[in-house]
Parts: sequence; structure tokens; C-alpha cells
Amino acid sequence: MSAVPASTAAAMNLSSSSPPSPSFDAASWSQNHLARVEGALSQWVGDSAPAGLGDAMRYAVLDGGKRLRPLLVLAAYEAACSSAGAGAAAFDDAALRAACAVELIHAYSLVHDDMPCMDNDILRRGKPTVHVRFGEAQALLAGDALQAFAFELLTPDDSTTPAATQAALCRLLARAAGSAGMAGGQAIDLASVGIALTEDQLRHMHRLKTGALLQGSVLMGAVCGHAAQPAYKALSDYGAAMGLAFQVVDDILDVVADSATLGKTAGKDAAADKPTYVSLLGLERAQAYAQELLHEAQAALTRSGLPDTRALAALADMVVRRSH
Amino acid sequence: MSAVPASTAAAMNLSSSSPPSPSFDAASWSQNHLARVEGALSQWVGDSAPAGLGDAMRYAVLDGGKRLRPLLVLAAYEAACSSAGAGAAAFDDAALRAACAVELIHAYSLVHDDMPCMDNDILRRGKPTVHVRFGEAQALLAGDALQAFAFELLTPDDSTTPAATQAALCRLLARAAGSAGMAGGQAIDLASVGIALTEDQLRHMHRLKTGALLQGSVLMGAVCGHAAQPAYKALSDYGAAMGLAFQVVDDILDVVADSATLGKTAGKDAAADKPTYVSLLGLERAQAYAQELLHEAQAALTRSGLPDTRALAALADMVVRRSH
Repeated sequence: MSAVPASTAAAMNLSSSSPPSPSFDAASWSQNHLARVEGALSQWVGDSAPAGLGDAMRYAVLDGGKRLRPLLVLAAYEAACSSAGAGAAAFDDAALRAACAVELIHAYSLVHDDMPCMDNDILRRGKPTVHVRFGEAQALLAGDALQAFAFELLTPDDSTTPAATQAALCRLLARAAGSAGMAGGQAIDLASVGIALTEDQLRHMHRLKTGALLQGSVLMGAVCGHAAQPAYKALSDYGAAMGLAFQVVDDILDVVADSATLGKTAGKDAAADKPTYVSLLGLERAQAYAQELLHEAQAALTRSGLPDTRALAALADMVVRRSH
Repeated sequence: MSAVPASTAAAMNLSSSSPPSPSFDAASWSQNHLARVEGALSQWVGDSAPAGLGDAMRYAVLDGGKRLRPLLVLAAYEAACSSAGAGAAAFDDAALRAACAVELIHAYSLVHDDMPCMDNDILRRGKPTVHVRFGEAQALLAGDALQAFAFELLTPDDSTTPAATQAALCRLLARAAGSAGMAGGQAIDLASVGIALTEDQLRHMHRLKTGALLQGSVLMGAVCGHAAQPAYKALSDYGAAMGLAFQVVDDILDVVADSATLGKTAGKDAAADKPTYVSLLGLERAQAYAQELLHEAQAALTRSGLPDTRALAALADMVVRRSH
């Protein structure tokens, strides 16, 4: 998989921010941006990986998932660009690459999570998991290669993206994915089965396990859009609240939804005796907590002072109201 | 694992290049530089990773291995700095970080390679493998976290290393580790068991599986030392020849050495019916080929025009003459 020409992303016509329009159609916004992400992922992932590895990588990434993380990157990027005086168009390529990179990290984590030595899950997004389809060894390698490719996507050598932006994106992604982020949260999760966590401990686990990459997505978009302080700080707060809300809702859905709606095995946290917000707070208080976090996220957007944060607001809303 | 202060590396006193001295003591050079790498790895790896993850990461990385890749980074860095007019001292921190980053990638690949779904090996560097010691799930996570940490090490936010260098290092490492490099080579390896490869196919597999990261190590050192063309190209040729020589010798040692000397299971390639240079060329021609590659590597160093490439020459020599 060699370097992807910067011109590819330009040809995909990722729009620079347009002036706020009186009405905001969240569904159209999502559909429009999803199409760009899907197109870029389909073009970039696994195109020349040898010996079946590319097939496993593409299977893991394409045609599935809500793409919440890429949408957060693009929404944060556009929000930052909506600031007066921000010159955004030149960095569209960086934003699209960052959007794809966070999805690659998310996808690799699912591949490894589903393996027999972890959650041993056979169903993901309504399809057989990667190790079921391609074997464990290929699944392990595909996950490893997807993580490396995320960093390759962020550092094109023929791009107009400034090196400082490339380096900052790698830094944010590495921290969000590593032992102080996603991987660390998974280690806590492993060690927590059958253990009664306090609410603080549960929150810490989720801030790392899922929150770090969701918040990282927002921050990577903010970096691509050259958000200045204090907007950057406010977007960080938005990312933290929204990331935690995502996990609280995940725990709720694990209890109230069925497998067909979820596209994965429902009730597995309870079956695995894993601590969740529902087991800790009960269903009603967990639902109230999700609402509270949504309000926190919205307050942070107001505090950012950015003229147009409607896509970010819509995504936070979607996170809390989703049914799967 | 938060950002590592740039000053840490400075405090470790990684020397900038000194003028070529009349005699070169390769053993002292290696010992001196190994101590710096070991010190940095010990300080940086897994220091604050939660829930036992840090222990598994440190076990995978510390107290073992030849550290060939880090030494290649530092030797290439110093060779590049030996060029007239190169101002090197300011980038010592980048070179030490790059040296550690390539070792983290190497270490993670061993952890994942040893897992039951891959080579199912229980002995590595004379010790139980990570999954034997910590369980498969923790081994999987430790490998994942080590890969992420490699990129985190390359992108410190309080460093004097220029962003362009940081981005270039991430680019080189991601390509060397990913589907066009190490992970791709492993996929070919997986698909090649019991298959008669041609010499070209075997060479392609090894250029990816082990060659890419060895060559990448040389190139990362060259980038830290700001090697100009044509020295960069010559160092790349050196890295390619030396990387392939490494694998040819590995294949030879798998046949002629015993497990105690290797610190890992000997004869396992033959037992697994994997194609090797020895099975393809026979022992004698494989040994001659290793010598030929050593000469190629030495010729490339001469061609580089760099005043002092003695450490790189000594490392190539060591690669071919090693007994384990």
C-alpha cells in the first residue's frame, strides 16, 4: 500500500465550510459526509496488500458501522473552520485523511476485540467477524496492518498539509489509541470482569476504552481546522462529555435492544458479568445520566464561541437518541 | 502513558557524531549505544499503563534482544551527521526516539507472532513468550499498545525536533510496519506454508517481512541526521542488502544452530514446512548469498560518500557473522 496521492482527496471534493445557513438538515449533512468517508475508505484501504491481507482489511472496514468517529472529525473540522478568519479549504485533505484514520483504529480494535482470546464474538454489524471469515492469524495481521495504515494515511509525502498538522494528528491518534487511551481501557475492562467497580472506576475505564478515541476524533478535526484556544478546549470538553454519553447509551442498549437491531450480540456484557452503567446505576438513572452528558456537550459547544457547531450538536444528539 | 519530555533524552546524553577517529572499536560503540537504548526503553515503556498492561509491555520489550534495529537507526544517524556541514546535536532526541520506536514495532510483532493462532511459540529470548506469561488477551493488547506507543514516541509535543522530521519518521515507520512492509510479509508467510516459492517470491516475502523494518530503521536514522541525496539513496541500498542478508542468515541459523544458542525454538521453519533460503538454495549457496549481500551493503556505504560509516559497516558484518 503505497502513499495515497493528495489529489485523490481533493478529487473527492470534501467541501470546505460554507457559511451557516438558516436551517440545518442533519440527515443530509450526515449522508453527504458519510458518502465521502465511504468513498475514501473504499479507495484507500487494502488496495495492494498481499496474500489475502487486503481482503481481510477491507472486510473489516468497509460496508458497515455508523462512522461516528469520522463524522466527528469532519464536524469538528467544519466547526473550527466556521470561525471568522479561518482559511480552511487547503486542509480538506487532512480532514478526510484524519476521518479515515480514526475509523481504521476503531475497525482494528473491533477485529482484535472479537477474537476468541478476547470477547470471542462471531457476529459484528450483522456479519461474521473477521476471524470467523478469514481465520485468526489473518484477523490478527489485518488489525495490526490497519493500525499502521492509520498513521500512514496521516502522513502523505505529497500533500499540502503542513508537517506540523501531520505530526499533531499522529500525536493525538497515538495517544487516543494507546495504553493511556483505548488499549489501556481494554486492559482495565479485561481486569474488571466479575469485579464491583465504583462509578469513578467505571468512568475512568470508559474514558479510556471508548472516550479517548471519540474525543481524539473531535480534537483531530479541530487541529485540521486550526481551532484556536479557547475553542479547542471547549471542543475537547464536548468530546469528553459526548464520548462518555456514547458508552452510557451503549450499556443501556445492551440491556434494552435485541441482537438484530444492534447488529451484534445483545446482553453480552451482563452475560460476561461486566460492570456497566446499568448494573451500577440502574436503567432509569443511567438514562438520566446520558441526558445530563448530552447537556454538558451542548454547553461546551456554546462555550466554544464557534459560529456553526450544528453538525457537532446533531451528532451528540444522535449518540444519545440512537437505537443501535 | 503521557508525553515523554524531550529533556529526558537530552539527559541521557546521546552523543552527537564525533569526528572519525583513526581506530573504530565496534564492540565499544555497540555497548555504548545499547546502554542508551536500554535506558530509554526502560524509562519510557509501559510506565503508566493500567491494569497489568504496562507489565506485559515492559516484559515484551525490556531485557532481551540484539537491538539491531535501534543500533541501525543510531549508526545511520551518526553516519549522516558525519557529512561535512551537518549540524546534528539538536536532533539527538529524535534519533533516540526513532531507535526506540523501531524496537517497539519489532517487539510487538514478536508478541503477536508467538501467539497460538500464529506460530504458537512458547520460548522467546530464552523466556516464556508474552501470552504464556500474561495470557493471550493481554498479549494481544500489549502488542497493540506497543505499536501505538511507537508513533507516540515519534511525536513529542515539547520537542525541538522539527515537525517535518516527526512527520517523516511516522511516514517511514508506518510504511515499514504495515501491509506494504512487515504485516504484508507476514501475510505472505502465512500463505506460503507448504508451497514451493521461487527465489524471487521468497525474496519478496522477506523484503517485506523483515527487510522493510530493517531498511526503515536505516532510513529513519538518515532522516534524523538530515542525510541529503545521494547519501540517502545509498543508505537505502545498504538497508535493503543488509535486511535481506539478515533473513538469509536467519534461515541458515534455523538449520545449523540449536535452541539454546538461538534463545528460541530452532528448526521450526523446516518443521512448519516453511520455504527458506536453505531449503531453496541449499546450505552452501545460502551462505555464499549472505556474503554477496554483505559486499553489496559495503559497496553502498562506499557509494554514500559519507565520511564515517564504520558503525553501519560493523553492523552489517555482525548481521552476517552472528551465531544467534
